[in-house]
Amino acid sequence: MTVGDFGEFSLVTRIARRLPQGDGVLLGPGDDAALVSAPDGRVVLSTDLLLEGRHFRRDWSSGQDIGRKAAAQNLADIAAMGARPTALLVGLGLPPGTAVAWVDELFDGLCEECALVGASVVGGDISRSEAVLLGVTALGDLGGRAPVTRAGARPSDVVAVAGRLGHAAAGLALLSAGARGSGPLVDAHRRPRPPYAMGPRAAELGATAMLDVSDGLLQDLGHVADAGGVRIELDSAAFAVPEELRQAAAELDADPLAWMLTGGDDHALAATFPAGTGLSGQWQVIGTVTEGQGVLVDGREFGKGGWDHFAE
Amino acid sequence: MTVGDFGEFSLVTRIARRLPQGDGVLLGPGDDAALVSAPDGRVVLSTDLLLEGRHFRRDWSSGQDIGRKAAAQNLADIAAMGARPTALLVGLGLPPGTAVAWVDELFDGLCEECALVGASVVGGDISRSEAVLLGVTALGDLGGRAPVTRAGARPSDVVAVAGRLGHAAAGLALLSAGARGSGPLVDAHRRPRPPYAMGPRAAELGATAMLDVSDGLLQDLGHVADAGGVRIELDSAAFAVPEELRQAAAELDADPLAWMLTGGDDHALAATFPAGTGLSGQWQVIGTVTEGQGVLVDGREFGKGGWDHFAE
Repeated sequence: MTVGDFGEFSLVTRIARRLPQGDGVLLGPGDDAALVSAPDGRVVLSTDLLLEGRHFRRDWSSGQDIGRKAAAQNLADIAAMGARPTALLVGLGLPPGTAVAWVDELFDGLCEECALVGASVVGGDISRSEAVLLGVTALGDLGGRAPVTRAGARPSDVVAVAGRLGHAAAGLALLSAGARGSGPLVDAHRRPRPPYAMGPRAAELGATAMLDVSDGLLQDLGHVADAGGVRIELDSAAFAVPEELRQAAAELDADPLAWMLTGGDDHALAATFPAGTGLSGQWQVIGTVTEGQGVLVDGREFGKGGWDHFAE
Repeated sequence: MTVGDFGEFSLVTRIARRLPQGDGVLLGPGDDAALVSAPDGRVVLSTDLLLEGRHFRRDWSSGQDIGRKAAAQNLADIAAMGARPTALLVGLGLPPGTAVAWVDELFDGLCEECALVGASVVGGDISRSEAVLLGVTALGDLGGRAPVTRAGARPSDVVAVAGRLGHAAAGLALLSAGARGSGPLVDAHRRPRPPYAMGPRAAELGATAMLDVSDGLLQDLGHVADAGGVRIELDSAAFAVPEELRQAAAELDADPLAWMLTGGDDHALAATFPAGTGLSGQWQVIGTVTEGQGVLVDGREFGKGGWDHFAE
C-alpha cells in the first residue's frame, strides 16, 4: 500500500491517530493549528530542512532512523539554548510511491526521539514531492532560565563538550566505503544521541555560550568565537579518542581527531563556562577562551572542515 | 550573483540582517533557535510545505509574490484559530543557481506579509535543493481567548465567510489558459489576502467553529461538518458573485460559483456562529448548520471538488 493509493486525508488521519500527545499539548494534530502550553511565557523555536539524497539516504537509513535523526537535530537546537523541548511540527514531502509502512516507521522514529525529552509531535503538513523531504520545527520552554546564546564566551572561560564527536562522520565514512548492516559508528550516523538534559543543566551551571555541534566542532566553535569576539584554543591532548574511532580510522586510513574536530551530525553540545565551574563527568573540558579571534588547536589553525551546504 | 557563488553562511547572514524584528522577538535569527514572547502562556502553531511546480511556479509568480503567499497561508492558519500571528520560521531549499536577488525578493515578500499582522520572521534554515521549496511555520498568541477549532458547530448556527472566494482559482485558470501580466484575479492567485483581523474578531463574537479556506469551501466545510457531527446547508443565492469572477468565467466558459465553492488558496475564513450573532458587513452569511452530515448546496451535493495533494 502506497501513500498515493491511500490519499492525503486518509494518510493525515492515520498519522494523527498514531501520535501520542503529552500533557503540555492543549490541542494536537487535526485542526488548522496546534495549541501548546508555554508556561515560561516565552518559546524557543527552531526549524530544519532534511532532504533525501542530501541529508539522508533511504538505502542507508530506515524510516525510523530518519525520524529519529530529524527529530534529534531539531530537539538538540532547543537544548542548546538551555531549554526543554516541548513540541515538534513535521512538514513532509512524499513521492506517491512511498509505502505507507515506511511513513509509519518515520513517525515511530520521530515520536520515539520526542519521548526521550517529553516532547510531542503536535502537527504537520503532507505534500506530494519528487523525493522525501522533511521540514521539522521544534519548540521549547526555558523554565524561567535566560537563553544561552552563542555570544557570551569571555576570556578565561573553559570550553567543554557533552555528547559524542566524530562518530557520525566515521559512520558516514564507513557507509561511503561500502559498510552495511549495523555497528556503533554507522548507527551513530543513523541516529545521533544528543545529550539533551545537558542543555538546561549547562544553563543552570552558568554556561556563557552554547551551541549544538551540527556542522563540525571547529566550524561551530568558530561561530562562538565570532559572536563573542574571542579566541578559542583547543588542546588536542584533552580529546579522549574512543577506541571504535581509532579502529575505523585505521581501517579507512583516516585521522580520528579530524573526525572529532570537523565531523558534523553528532549534535554534541559545546559550551563555555566561567573557569572553576564544577562540571560533571559528562562534560569533557577541551580548551579555553582567550583574547583574540578564531579557533586554534594546539596553537595552530587546523585547516578547513565542516559543511557548507552550497559547496560541492 | 547566485546563492552558489555566495555560500550558505554569507547568505544566512545577509538574510538575517534584512529581517526586521518586532517587539515580541526576544532573540531573532542567528543562533541555534529564536526566542519569542508568548504572553498568553500558550502558543498556536502550524506548518506548511510549499514546493516549486506543485504550489507555485517561478514563471507565474515573482519571488516577492511567493514570499507573500507562503507567509499568508501560514498566518491564515493562525488567524483561523482566533489567534494573532507573532512569528514565522522559514526553511528554504534553493538550487545553487538561484539569484541572490530572487532570495532577497522572497524575504521581502515574507516580511511584508508578516508586517500586515505585526509578526516577524525570526529564524530559518537554508539548504541546497533541486527545486525551490519552503517549509514555513507560524506561531500565534490567543490573548486569553479559547481557540476556535473545527469541531464546535451546532444545529441552528449560521455559516459565514470573511474574505475572498474563488479569486485565486479564477486567477490560476487564467494563468493556465495563457494569461500573463497582472489583473485582479491573477494577482489574487499570486498574493492571497486573508482577512487576518477577522480571526480574533470571530473568536470574540463567539464563533463555534472556524477554519481558513485553503482546499476549497465545500471540502473545508466538510471538515467542520465531520468534526461537529452536523450538516452544513449552503444557499447559492447568498453568494455575492463579484463582477470580475463573472467576466473571467464567461471568458473561460467556467462556472463562477464552482470557483467560489471549490477553489482553494484564497484563505478566506469560514466560521459558524450562534444564530443572532451580530456580524459586521465583512462577514457574508452563506448558510446554516442543521442536524445530519455533509455539506449541501441548495439541498443537494454539489459534486466533487477541492484538492487532494496525492491525486493527479
